[in-house]
Amino acid sequence: MNYYARPLNKLINELGKLPGIGGKTAQRLALHILSMSDEDAFALSDAIREAKSEMTFCSVCGNLTDKDPCAICSDEKRDRSILCVVESPKDVIAMEKIREFHGYYHVLHGVISPMDDKGPDDINLKSLITRLQDDRIKELIIATNPTIEGEATAVYIARLIKPSGIKVSRIAHGIPVGGDLEYADEVTLLKAIEGRREL
Amino acid sequence: MNYYARPLNKLINELGKLPGIGGKTAQRLALHILSMSDEDAFALSDAIREAKSEMTFCSVCGNLTDKDPCAICSDEKRDRSILCVVESPKDVIAMEKIREFHGYYHVLHGVISPMDDKGPDDINLKSLITRLQDDRIKELIIATNPTIEGEATAVYIARLIKPSGIKVSRIAHGIPVGGDLEYADEVTLLKAIEGRREL
Repeated sequence: MNYYARPLNKLINELGKLPGIGGKTAQRLALHILSMSDEDAFALSDAIREAKSEMTFCSVCGNLTDKDPCAICSDEKRDRSILCVVESPKDVIAMEKIREFHGYYHVLHGVISPMDDKGPDDINLKSLITRLQDDRIKELIIATNPTIEGEATAVYIARLIKPSGIKVSRIAHGIPVGGDLEYADEVTLLKAIEGRREL
Repeated sequence: MNYYARPLNKLINELGKLPGIGGKTAQRLALHILSMSDEDAFALSDAIREAKSEMTFCSVCGNLTDKDPCAICSDEKRDRSILCVVESPKDVIAMEKIREFHGYYHVLHGVISPMDDKGPDDINLKSLITRLQDDRIKELIIATNPTIEGEATAVYIARLIKPSGIKVSRIAHGIPVGGDLEYADEVTLLKAIEGRREL
């Protein structure tokens, strides 16, 4: 039996497809949307349609953008000598939030993962090689996630780039600030010791 | 500084207005929506617009519906002798899910709450009185929530209806099935003892 009228049922189904939103939450959100003003509800509907229609990937770095090239790539004030390689557009956002990195980005849109049948040709790697022919680039920071696939991708890129003479670095792994040694897993602790620095 | 392109920023803002969705979740959902197929994203957008445009309140019972009167009110097979009073449309859904109540509903759209400046005239009570003139109705079950306002509203309605000779009942309060005596609060335990039944 169906407890909801058809349009409500459809809305609950569509909301339930979003990550982390189960049946109960979808119902709560749908009823909330119905209780919103027409203006607010339509603004949400339009925002989804607009974002989906207008957002594309930057042809230079692969970041999410509404104009091509993206705001970062077209910002001439940034540091041309550093390029940071990340897995996905949300990593660019995370990096930008620290306000300390002023170079450019390159978004891979994935990592090399033989288990998922993803090789070097399935990620945004070719355009990275092309970009590195710009001899203003002195350093490549590889900021893929510290997963097995992320590490493998980092090593792959490092081997590929090293012969060209560009400095290749990897972000540090260790105990997060505010974290607790006691609760750190063994691999993280090992990485923290390996990456120790003289005071 | 703004880390997101304008359409993405707008989508994150709109999603963040939903209940229980904070900044991080809004960002995650927005990026997920961008990674969905056009078809799926537009289906979500349309479902919001459609639900908001097509859903109204039933002129008889006040329930959410896409046609008036609602599916429950226009179902002639249900039991005309019992009317269940609930606070909101989601309570109708909760009641319907038990599949054991076959009477009709009346949705108050709120409760009497002097603290929030809501009196008897601010909830859907007048039409309840009109409906009760139908002498096929023998029992009124008051299923408002067991909050202070819900109880006060129940008592108010009971006093209002009793003189008409219609039986007025209140849903039972007590230990939830699967609950634990040890963890029940004192008021619930008191209600459970007050409402004890002979075996």
